[in-house]
Amino acid sequence: MTVTARAPAVAPSALDSAFGGWLRLLGPERAHRDARALRAASRATFATSGTVLAILEPASREEVQGCVKIANQYGVPLYPVSTGKNWGYGSRAPVRDAALLYLGRMNRIVGFDEDLGYVTIEPGVTQRQLLEFLREHGSRLWMDATGASPECSIIGNTMERGFGHTPMGDHCGTACGLEVVLPTGELLQTGFGRFEGAHTAALGRWGVGPSLDGLFSQSNLGIVTRMSVWLMPAPEAFEAFFFTCATAEGLAPVIEAIRPLRMEGTLRSVMHIGNDYKVVAASGRYPWEEVEGRTPLGREEMTRLRSALGVGAWSGSGGLYGTPAHVKEAKRRLRHALAGKVDRIQFVNDRTLGILRRFPKAIGRLMRIDVAKTLAVLDPVYSLLKGVPTASPLASAYWRKKGGPPAMDLDPDRDGCGLLWCSPVLPNTGAAAAEVTTLASRVLLEHGFEPQMSISVATERMLVCVITISYDRDVAGEDERASACYRRLVQDLLGRGYPPYRLPVSSMDTVSDRSTFADTVAAIKAALDPGNIIAPGRYSSATPRD
Amino acid sequence: MTVTARAPAVAPSALDSAFGGWLRLLGPERAHRDARALRAASRATFATSGTVLAILEPASREEVQGCVKIANQYGVPLYPVSTGKNWGYGSRAPVRDAALLYLGRMNRIVGFDEDLGYVTIEPGVTQRQLLEFLREHGSRLWMDATGASPECSIIGNTMERGFGHTPMGDHCGTACGLEVVLPTGELLQTGFGRFEGAHTAALGRWGVGPSLDGLFSQSNLGIVTRMSVWLMPAPEAFEAFFFTCATAEGLAPVIEAIRPLRMEGTLRSVMHIGNDYKVVAASGRYPWEEVEGRTPLGREEMTRLRSALGVGAWSGSGGLYGTPAHVKEAKRRLRHALAGKVDRIQFVNDRTLGILRRFPKAIGRLMRIDVAKTLAVLDPVYSLLKGVPTASPLASAYWRKKGGPPAMDLDPDRDGCGLLWCSPVLPNTGAAAAEVTTLASRVLLEHGFEPQMSISVATERMLVCVITISYDRDVAGEDERASACYRRLVQDLLGRGYPPYRLPVSSMDTVSDRSTFADTVAAIKAALDPGNIIAPGRYSSATPRD
Repeated sequence: MTVTARAPAVAPSALDSAFGGWLRLLGPERAHRDARALRAASRATFATSGTVLAILEPASREEVQGCVKIANQYGVPLYPVSTGKNWGYGSRAPVRDAALLYLGRMNRIVGFDEDLGYVTIEPGVTQRQLLEFLREHGSRLWMDATGASPECSIIGNTMERGFGHTPMGDHCGTACGLEVVLPTGELLQTGFGRFEGAHTAALGRWGVGPSLDGLFSQSNLGIVTRMSVWLMPAPEAFEAFFFTCATAEGLAPVIEAIRPLRMEGTLRSVMHIGNDYKVVAASGRYPWEEVEGRTPLGREEMTRLRSALGVGAWSGSGGLYGTPAHVKEAKRRLRHALAGKVDRIQFVNDRTLGILRRFPKAIGRLMRIDVAKTLAVLDPVYSLLKGVPTASPLASAYWRKKGGPPAMDLDPDRDGCGLLWCSPVLPNTGAAAAEVTTLASRVLLEHGFEPQMSISVATERMLVCVITISYDRDVAGEDERASACYRRLVQDLLGRGYPPYRLPVSSMDTVSDRSTFADTVAAIKAALDPGNIIAPGRYSSATPRD
Repeated sequence: MTVTARAPAVAPSALDSAFGGWLRLLGPERAHRDARALRAASRATFATSGTVLAILEPASREEVQGCVKIANQYGVPLYPVSTGKNWGYGSRAPVRDAALLYLGRMNRIVGFDEDLGYVTIEPGVTQRQLLEFLREHGSRLWMDATGASPECSIIGNTMERGFGHTPMGDHCGTACGLEVVLPTGELLQTGFGRFEGAHTAALGRWGVGPSLDGLFSQSNLGIVTRMSVWLMPAPEAFEAFFFTCATAEGLAPVIEAIRPLRMEGTLRSVMHIGNDYKVVAASGRYPWEEVEGRTPLGREEMTRLRSALGVGAWSGSGGLYGTPAHVKEAKRRLRHALAGKVDRIQFVNDRTLGILRRFPKAIGRLMRIDVAKTLAVLDPVYSLLKGVPTASPLASAYWRKKGGPPAMDLDPDRDGCGLLWCSPVLPNTGAAAAEVTTLASRVLLEHGFEPQMSISVATERMLVCVITISYDRDVAGEDERASACYRRLVQDLLGRGYPPYRLPVSSMDTVSDRSTFADTVAAIKAALDPGNIIAPGRYSSATPRD
């Protein structure tokens, strides 16, 4: 792993000329460089080094093409974002200095088929918007949602290889038919869409000839302006399950018990297991008073805290989808597989949730639980399992902020929340899960951070561990400590065979190794983007000009 | 669609020099150019124009790299095949003159994990070999198999986007971690495999950064020398189903009834529906006597023939996989969905098949069927649904051969079988299935061929129609008629929005349009293969040198 030299800054005269062109194309409403707005757009939830030089807001693919042509003409790079809510990985902040190409205004849903189960969308279409669209159309289709905000772009998340909670949770695996503005300004249709009028443009991933879709996720090879997303029919039956393990060591046996169920298809969706730090951070704020202002929150303190809250070392959740008979069978098998490995397992469906909502006091007395508190934790997870996005997880970005989150209009970038995600992938085995979480826990505590972690059973064969470095950017030195912690973590994990599935903008050099892979990507980049105009350095530090 | 000029022939002196190099590298056993062997290797099951200039048989990735370097040095193209059994699409015959790089000797299974369900294989590993490997290891894993011969390469089929019959039937979607010898001779690892020692190299498809896997299927951008294939655990319960529709018009309602079951997950696998011509050709030879030597076999004659054989206009088959409760529920829903739309539906499992095999006479009398004949038709399909490859379908390549297939050692290339496949993709709707099959039926009969067709419910959203042009290459004029028929068919289908998912070597110009897609592929080709050394013209007529 080598750190390449930073590209030379953009010459002010070139920027002025390019900006003039963009201004003529888009007008002052949609091409601007107000210093405050530029500062805000350059700011992520951790230290980054790229600066936003101008903000461009095209409203159509033709305007995107125009912006790209001007960028090429003057040699000023563009950094495309959909809605720019890539929190924890860099938000809108570019890897290197660039004009921000904000695609949020392109927010049309341009195709929809209830029977074949898909929508065709533009990059500004958010999770909330798709949900509302489906509801307005009385659709029986479910979307998949990520735990990020309802205002997040679906294309943005998919191109970063985000994942959700339903059987359609592997977003790259359930999307196809990309329309891409290439770095030259030309318009590419991937898959069968290359053939005028092809009926399968939104239905098949491979097309005929080489499949190019993969080139445009986690890359800087083009700007996706349209994509088809597959949706699932609402299942006849749905049931959520929740379980806890008392001890940290309980994770490995649970993973081993879950894998066969996933492999055989009893579990069809992404399942998530969070540790005590993750659950406590999701449901509250740092206990400043209890620990007299000390950080980090140590193991013993957390054990005390989680006991008081009735939380285990690990808390898992997932969904069962299918016909009533399917779901009944899945419940039986899940119960059987987890027996003796979890402390309790609970099933929740629309009916039980309705009862809980209608009779909170009676049930609270009967079951000796705080129903309001239970619902506050339960509701967002339950929603996500049904593909309904929720704003709840966003508040946890304020974990270490002494003031806590504002009452409304949360904005972790603006509010100085420190949030940096390290997300290694690992085999779907208990041993790997134990090794990675033990290592991460140690490294984070050593660097002064709470090891908030989740393990997602992302596919039949693979787990993703999302390790959260959460801090307060307004505390001096914390940015540097967080950065050092991330680097140590990613190096230790890579050294043990656990690469990340996704990278923060500050750590693209993780993939700038001198491998044939990096060289091949660089050769393709040079062929498609000779001017190195699109997002220089993104997922490939080895750019042709360096 | 334009037909580009043929590349200039390889200069004899360059070929001699290159061959000298290959001979030194591989020895005379594995680098040869015996005229008879070259002629045989240049011969497919339809008219092709590329000639095999030499045959090279590397036994390791290092030897593949060596061959590629020599090819570059002297400018002599290589045409890589795995086992070369791409029947109906071109067998081993190159698109343009090239030395054949036969990878059949690289046939090791280099990785295997029972719990995580995968094998890592070389290109020479055949379907039969993997099956035997799994049996020898007492594995509980099932592979997926295509209807092609047991001697077919798994990597070869996957890179051509072949599909099978089980829930793992989308081969490109269930493979990852490619090792590729690039046109420069360098060795590329795709996905997480780029990181030394990554535990997820065989487990995840995307990796970090751009995903390159798609570039190497249906392309000429590299030579895949290793790949991981995912396998499924043997389900606790399995049941095959078979149904027939009396009339051609019965297809559309069946497709409409099947789609919701596939979308909801009741049906989890590729389902195949063949027409009368397909079923009759699979179970016998052309009825030369009955029709007094006339071709083609007309609609009326076929209707008479199929009635005599007790075959419907369409015959469908599929598998139900899962726990006993799952399979029971799936049976119930399938029966319900198809009620009134099919003439009969039958379920077969290991137990019923065992009884049939043990008491053929008694059951034959009782059910008034010829049990031996029933088993002959049933067995291969039943096997494929369980991922067990079968040699049976190969015999149907001899449909129009008056002598019929030889008793053993079938070789359609050698034996002058005419076999040319046109395989459009279409939405998973009854209307599309009816339109494509009606069109294809008309075009084939007009050109003097029987419209053998199958409709595969390949995914939730997409059908693949495989249209077989079957003939006798030894009959004068038939090659030309078959070629004309194919071109008319593909043009008519493309014009109506139904592109093919795969191409015969003689029709690569189908994708040499002047689209941005073709230009982008050409730009990548020029970047990765400046010498245009690997399979010139394959899935991209627009080569950098043309």
